[in-house]
Amino acid sequence: LSTAVATLAKRYICGENLSEATKSIEKLRRDRFAFTMDLLGEAVISEVEAGEYLNRYIAMMEDLSGKAKAWGLIDQIDKADGEELKRVQVSVKLSAFYSQFDPLDPVKTTEKVSEPARILLRKAQALGCGIHFDMEQYEFKSLTLQILKQVLMEPEFRDRTDVGITLQGYLRDSEQDLCDLVEWTKLRGKPVTVRLVKGAYWDRETIRSYQQGWALPVFSDKVSTDANYERLIQILLENHQYLYAAIGSHNARSLAKAIAIVQTLNIPSRAFETQCLYGMGDKFAKAIADMGYRVRVYCPFGDLIPGMSYLIRRLLENTANSSFLRISGEGVDVGKLIAAPAMTERDANYNGAPALNIFDGFVNSSDRDYAINEERETTQTALQQVRRQLGKTYLPIINGQAVQTDNYVESVNPANSSQVVGKIGLASIEQAESAVQVAKNAFSSWKKLSAKERGDILRKAADIMEEKREELVAWICWEVAKPIREGDGEVSEAIDFCRYYAKEMERLESGVQRNLPGEDNTYIYQPRGVVVVISPWNFPFAIALGMSVAAIAAGNTVILKPAEQSSVIGAKIAEVLQVAGLPTGVFTYLPAKGSTVGSHLVKHPDVHLIAFTGSQQVGCQIVTEASILRPKQKHMKRVIAEMGGKNGIIIDESADLDQAVVGVMNSAFGFAGQKCSACSRAIVLAPVYDNFLERLVEATRSLKVGEAHLPDTKFSAVIDGAAQQNI
Amino acid sequence: LSTAVATLAKRYICGENLSEATKSIEKLRRDRFAFTMDLLGEAVISEVEAGEYLNRYIAMMEDLSGKAKAWGLIDQIDKADGEELKRVQVSVKLSAFYSQFDPLDPVKTTEKVSEPARILLRKAQALGCGIHFDMEQYEFKSLTLQILKQVLMEPEFRDRTDVGITLQGYLRDSEQDLCDLVEWTKLRGKPVTVRLVKGAYWDRETIRSYQQGWALPVFSDKVSTDANYERLIQILLENHQYLYAAIGSHNARSLAKAIAIVQTLNIPSRAFETQCLYGMGDKFAKAIADMGYRVRVYCPFGDLIPGMSYLIRRLLENTANSSFLRISGEGVDVGKLIAAPAMTERDANYNGAPALNIFDGFVNSSDRDYAINEERETTQTALQQVRRQLGKTYLPIINGQAVQTDNYVESVNPANSSQVVGKIGLASIEQAESAVQVAKNAFSSWKKLSAKERGDILRKAADIMEEKREELVAWICWEVAKPIREGDGEVSEAIDFCRYYAKEMERLESGVQRNLPGEDNTYIYQPRGVVVVISPWNFPFAIALGMSVAAIAAGNTVILKPAEQSSVIGAKIAEVLQVAGLPTGVFTYLPAKGSTVGSHLVKHPDVHLIAFTGSQQVGCQIVTEASILRPKQKHMKRVIAEMGGKNGIIIDESADLDQAVVGVMNSAFGFAGQKCSACSRAIVLAPVYDNFLERLVEATRSLKVGEAHLPDTKFSAVIDGAAQQNI
Repeated sequence: LSTAVATLAKRYICGENLSEATKSIEKLRRDRFAFTMDLLGEAVISEVEAGEYLNRYIAMMEDLSGKAKAWGLIDQIDKADGEELKRVQVSVKLSAFYSQFDPLDPVKTTEKVSEPARILLRKAQALGCGIHFDMEQYEFKSLTLQILKQVLMEPEFRDRTDVGITLQGYLRDSEQDLCDLVEWTKLRGKPVTVRLVKGAYWDRETIRSYQQGWALPVFSDKVSTDANYERLIQILLENHQYLYAAIGSHNARSLAKAIAIVQTLNIPSRAFETQCLYGMGDKFAKAIADMGYRVRVYCPFGDLIPGMSYLIRRLLENTANSSFLRISGEGVDVGKLIAAPAMTERDANYNGAPALNIFDGFVNSSDRDYAINEERETTQTALQQVRRQLGKTYLPIINGQAVQTDNYVESVNPANSSQVVGKIGLASIEQAESAVQVAKNAFSSWKKLSAKERGDILRKAADIMEEKREELVAWICWEVAKPIREGDGEVSEAIDFCRYYAKEMERLESGVQRNLPGEDNTYIYQPRGVVVVISPWNFPFAIALGMSVAAIAAGNTVILKPAEQSSVIGAKIAEVLQVAGLPTGVFTYLPAKGSTVGSHLVKHPDVHLIAFTGSQQVGCQIVTEASILRPKQKHMKRVIAEMGGKNGIIIDESADLDQAVVGVMNSAFGFAGQKCSACSRAIVLAPVYDNFLERLVEATRSLKVGEAHLPDTKFSAVIDGAAQQNI
Repeated sequence: LSTAVATLAKRYICGENLSEATKSIEKLRRDRFAFTMDLLGEAVISEVEAGEYLNRYIAMMEDLSGKAKAWGLIDQIDKADGEELKRVQVSVKLSAFYSQFDPLDPVKTTEKVSEPARILLRKAQALGCGIHFDMEQYEFKSLTLQILKQVLMEPEFRDRTDVGITLQGYLRDSEQDLCDLVEWTKLRGKPVTVRLVKGAYWDRETIRSYQQGWALPVFSDKVSTDANYERLIQILLENHQYLYAAIGSHNARSLAKAIAIVQTLNIPSRAFETQCLYGMGDKFAKAIADMGYRVRVYCPFGDLIPGMSYLIRRLLENTANSSFLRISGEGVDVGKLIAAPAMTERDANYNGAPALNIFDGFVNSSDRDYAINEERETTQTALQQVRRQLGKTYLPIINGQAVQTDNYVESVNPANSSQVVGKIGLASIEQAESAVQVAKNAFSSWKKLSAKERGDILRKAADIMEEKREELVAWICWEVAKPIREGDGEVSEAIDFCRYYAKEMERLESGVQRNLPGEDNTYIYQPRGVVVVISPWNFPFAIALGMSVAAIAAGNTVILKPAEQSSVIGAKIAEVLQVAGLPTGVFTYLPAKGSTVGSHLVKHPDVHLIAFTGSQQVGCQIVTEASILRPKQKHMKRVIAEMGGKNGIIIDESADLDQAVVGVMNSAFGFAGQKCSACSRAIVLAPVYDNFLERLVEATRSLKVGEAHLPDTKFSAVIDGAAQQNI
């Protein structure tokens, strides 16, 4: 580590180990500052790490409470209104108690998190320590508050007043959350502390909203946060008989405002303290302590590398254009600096519209946000509704008509093979022949429509899919055992394909001008004719639909032969396109045996293009078969074959292993590792190899294996018996 | 025809037929204007049309000279210094006497053009008419002057003073041309008339220069032309004892300048007249006639459709921003309007640098301009030099070494099959195998160079080809019987390929960034490996080289198997690339049998890409063979197969048939119709069908068939006996 970083670290981190940290806090106490300890560490990404996290906190409390016995009583920080306060306080993250903390699965998460919380609360009481619960990303906020309220309402903990909860002023929800807490403590009967901070993950929350196309949980402007924060201070202090206030800020204006209210309302000492971060805002802290108020310093300690992200947040905070600490050092007019903050217009008027995930003018469809109760419930309802529809029969649809077949196959839920998802009628060669004629006939009129006209139908299909999203996710979940969140992403991708291809074709339709003196040249794209789409079961919806609508948008007509294992989802695609108003014959749903009917289609002289995604063996066969010019065939066929991948991820020694381990794990084991894009090799440099490997193994071991429709399932069954044999 | 066009036509065209025209000129004579008759008509694109052109002029002279007998003598226009002038004068285009008028072939052109000129001169004398020779495009100017001087120096015509020649003031050459004419008439002993015009094809000449990348023959600025024009007037009038002056302008300043000189130098009446176009500058013409000078009106007559281009030139002239007639009607300050013109700086300083044919920043290589004597002669010299080198032996070059072969084949000149162009050593399968290993080895280092480093070698190759252009054209001419001009174009194309691919690869190398919030994505292109190029004989140089350097620029290594019929040219490509410094092994010259060695290469598991141009049959075979994944092959092969075309040209009823006929003819019969891009169908709308067909047949019949190296050959032998059988 360079000296510069080490110097910085020393400033903001109170020690690399407990013994260094002890010196720092003893010094703080000598200066009449209280403290709360935060153990810096890696992200908790496995159950082993979750267990370690708890144990390290227990060990820390045991150590510090022992040392505390030697500390003399300092009235200003150790007593309040006659009550003796806990000299040792620790700050913990609830989400670190369970590596699979997930709002999609509130039941299991609550169960897994509550028990360590209870253990910690008991231990703290036995050792005479206080516990403060931190808050991090917005995604976990609601569930965290819910779990804490639940645990702290249990008879064993209902009397505890040495416990704290954190609220973040930059969240639009925070006022409601505070009011809810007031009502909750009224019910509970005993106060807890609310630490009021502004929030340290503004960039992350904002970027994530834009990435996902979700509503912005935070205020867009710092001044709005400041205004909201003052409002929260007011509410909190006005309710001092129900909640103790810990005002965590380095903004002199915010702090002054709090003290003014304290003085006005004559708030008792137990119900008010200020907090600051170790190494930041020291002068303000001293001034406030000199006024006789209790000031608590948030003291992170631990190894530098895992502490780096904490360090970076502090640096960003100190250097942000909107930071009080930064501005106050620059000789800005004091009147301006301490002017009352007012919410900006865009923040005041924000109606919760989702941030737009726009790239090159294209708006991506948004995945569901399962941190929102309603969205979670809609998904569960759809899963049950679709479950009741399992077992129907699906026939080939040629020229808009379902046709009877001689042969059938059952599609079963891979995670529960006794559950028949659908009975599939397999088309014969004669039926395939008639499908080609239908597609050929439909081509003559379909190609004549403008890209706009064709695109409007696909955009309509996209809208239908948005409406039926949960139902489609459920079908994917039941038929190929794809976990909910991944099925949801697949539907988003399918929607994007419709809108993107429609838009691109409108762009391409206008052609390209390449004029020279004396020459006018226009290059245009023309549709080719009948396209056979042979789709895989691993993205049964997005790839089957995407390959089809690409061809359709361009003016071709399509025969879709889905993978046998996902033929029901193929039928759902046919339904969507039919409801969207696609003319009869432009899209043919043709479930069939690949080895006979698929092969016949590939060889057919009237087929112009084969779009295939699947195995290398079949793909190469198709390439070869399609390359042979057959009698009566007047064109060369085109093959788009996307076959297996062998994707590597390189992890170098500077990688953030918290992210690298999770990234590799998600890539390798998402949908049980059955994606062509799955990471199949991690190339890890020696200095981090052992650590990476150990953490990856433990993190992967922590993934729940189960039926795909269950919200805690991260890894479900592979597609069929043959796949299972292959593992 | 709309009324507006008809009205315009009536203004600028003196009649649709001779009887209407006669009324117009008799009216002009009554107003004391002399005339010269121009017969509007289609471009002369066949020998039938050339013959008709001559006959129509003879008929016109016979008719008018008969009518002239009834015209009374008008002193001002029919007499000068006591000499009686020809009352009937016609203006003819020398180039219209021969449909294949071509500066590349001055001998045959002179021969073909001189005889009709003589016939016309004799006939004119017999009928008592004057003849004036017009001038059109710059390309024909020098040869036209040369032929006229030659004919008018013949004893039979040396005394004739009733003949005129035209010079165009916008040409940079014009002063020199005028001085040459003065010297020539001194020698001749009798004066001819020089009609001095400014020139009516400025746009065409300028655009053509940019298209071809040739020096600009015209002044860039109108004011420079005006300045030059006044200088020419001065020179012409100062030499009035040798040349009669006909000042053809509608610019009052230019005319006034001429009259001032006439008055100053006291020029005799015979040696000076002014000319104007029918329907233009009437007021000036009348004013000058009123001053007693002879004014001659240039009177076009004939059908409107073929006269349209004349009409359009007149409209452009009347509406151009720089036109005197246009400006003078707009109330511009008279002082400014008649200020002495001065050559602009860019015209004064122009050093003859070629105009740049730039597209998207890319400068195209320029074809040779065969209107320039020197370039014509260099080509002829090269043809003879190369002829002396015919008959050598060319062996495969593997790893930089020529290797002996068991089998040989002779490459002969298709236009003269007894002429052996080269003896070709045909590689064996074992040699092909070693070529693949060499290419594979070379790939590992070649791909590591930057696009700039690879591109520099190709740019060097381009420079070498520019230097050796005539030699390369000669090889193409001898080996595949491609006429000179087309071979020259092929070398330009090859040069462009080198420079273009080098440049494009530099652009592509930087990759494309497609970043999203939270993602940094870079797409890059990677070379594939060993590329087999199987090239055709119809563009033996450009396509073989182009397909090779595309692959080379991208970082691949190449094995070129040229068509057997053009293997010597393949060896020339190897020479160029070797001299340019291409590392050994990056390019392998491998003449061989396609059916055995070619096929072996296509199937080879170490070959990544096959670039083929040739027949559909072979192309489809390659596509099929390459699609089969062979043992030890770890990649899918790519095939780029450019096969036969079936290209149509649509001629609608508004087409300019002069251009449509020539365009179709050149496209269909260029290189004896052996190009894949050849027009193989003309789709002609009924209203113009008969006329188009008749003219196309005659125009094509007028193409000279012969050995490719002869300058008058437009259509040479097809490639071999088999091709001949196919016709």
